[in-house]
Amino acid sequence: MGLWFTEKQTDNFGITAKINQTYHTEQTDFQRLDMVETAEWGGNMLLLDDMVMTTDRDEFVYHEMVAHVPLFTHPNPKAVLVVGGGDGGVIREVLKHPSVQKAVLVEIDGKVIEYSKKYLPNIAGKLEDPRVEVRVADGFMHIAENQNKYDVIMVDSTEPVGPAVNLFTKGFYDGISKALKDDGIFVAQTDNPWFKADLIKQVYHDVREIFPVTRLYTANIPTYPSGLWTFTLGSKIHDPLKVKDDRFHELETKYYTPQLHRACFALPKFVEDLTK
Amino acid sequence: MGLWFTEKQTDNFGITAKINQTYHTEQTDFQRLDMVETAEWGGNMLLLDDMVMTTDRDEFVYHEMVAHVPLFTHPNPKAVLVVGGGDGGVIREVLKHPSVQKAVLVEIDGKVIEYSKKYLPNIAGKLEDPRVEVRVADGFMHIAENQNKYDVIMVDSTEPVGPAVNLFTKGFYDGISKALKDDGIFVAQTDNPWFKADLIKQVYHDVREIFPVTRLYTANIPTYPSGLWTFTLGSKIHDPLKVKDDRFHELETKYYTPQLHRACFALPKFVEDLTK
Repeated sequence: MGLWFTEKQTDNFGITAKINQTYHTEQTDFQRLDMVETAEWGGNMLLLDDMVMTTDRDEFVYHEMVAHVPLFTHPNPKAVLVVGGGDGGVIREVLKHPSVQKAVLVEIDGKVIEYSKKYLPNIAGKLEDPRVEVRVADGFMHIAENQNKYDVIMVDSTEPVGPAVNLFTKGFYDGISKALKDDGIFVAQTDNPWFKADLIKQVYHDVREIFPVTRLYTANIPTYPSGLWTFTLGSKIHDPLKVKDDRFHELETKYYTPQLHRACFALPKFVEDLTK
Repeated sequence: MGLWFTEKQTDNFGITAKINQTYHTEQTDFQRLDMVETAEWGGNMLLLDDMVMTTDRDEFVYHEMVAHVPLFTHPNPKAVLVVGGGDGGVIREVLKHPSVQKAVLVEIDGKVIEYSKKYLPNIAGKLEDPRVEVRVADGFMHIAENQNKYDVIMVDSTEPVGPAVNLFTKGFYDGISKALKDDGIFVAQTDNPWFKADLIKQVYHDVREIFPVTRLYTANIPTYPSGLWTFTLGSKIHDPLKVKDDRFHELETKYYTPQLHRACFALPKFVEDLTK
């Protein structure tokens, strides 16, 4: 059989993937980091604390869906913040929007950036773009220190364990609201509805107390638990369900389409029930 | 760790699930059958040829999406055929439609029916309904022997290996067209787009040569490869995308909703490309 990586996504269920080789393993100041080459997932895979973060083959789903849904909802996004996301995938998608003048990445773990640049160049390659400012810092603090600054904020965090615990609190969403301009929008990855229903419910209700427009949407990410991922979007004015057809401009994607922009908000009944 | 079941969904990737106990293992005339109790999936799990067929916890997604999409597309489905589906889950959903007078199940492997009744009563329990006729027979032959008989046909087969090979051929779809009435609709499960793109492409194009209305739709099934499952629908007249709002009647579901009926046809770009 050779070398296999197994992620216990719950105590009693997981995925397993054949590993061709391990490039790097390190206990950083924040988490365990593994960069491996997979046999199935089209190239390399980044693991943090033994959880799959991204793979060369399916990364486009997550990165496109985090970026394009809020960026096409906002009529003219210029200043964008990505909290976390040290692999650079969300930044790459953000830069596809010509209106964006400045994209700030605030990643707490510089090692994630370093090894993504080295081993995931197709994902991290755009971190060198002149419109991008990379900061190795605490996203929670960055939010607290900035007001009325961003059009769109994306929270591309790990699960709510370890360094990302603060990023799933009402205090954080409140800070995000203040860091956004008057018509700002934010989106956060909020795990899967099969194993983390309570988390989704809690985040959705917290966000709804702060943002007039709160929406949950989904995407299929095969290397994430259950294959069904959720994103919670909070917006001060603009509604992702009311984007006019002429707002969508041509964009090279492999998952996102304008049709899917609308359809991804149609939730399975048991997921819709979490928002009630 | 104890007892774990691992399904190699590809040569290099799989899922693994903790097993509390194995109830039954048998090599039937057609395939290996295992009925086990899982720790994660809310109860029991049926395996055929080492592949997860259904679990007590996530079975509702597949069964609802196979049944309700074509049954709400047809204006008045009375006679329904399920090919395969010996666990009875699709039949259970079919019977939720009051217009249905007769639901025929043609399953090639009687052992699947027998052990589903015994260990999956919540799924198979409606096989005893007076509107249901259960036949242990070859679905391919049943199709060939019946003309102009059914309003809706669902193909709830295993993967195109072993007993189900014939169910993924153009000859079969041609037979289905003849077994359907003049405004009939059929749907087949057609695997996942991450590992079986060629299969989806082939089936879609075969079906399109026979049925004027051909549509691909998806659902999230966490215990199936990649978590994203496709269904190919062929229809002689009625278009699932043109169902009027007043066609939908109240129905108890956990996944399907009228909104999702429309949204499930909005495909990720790389899946949409398979239909071109």
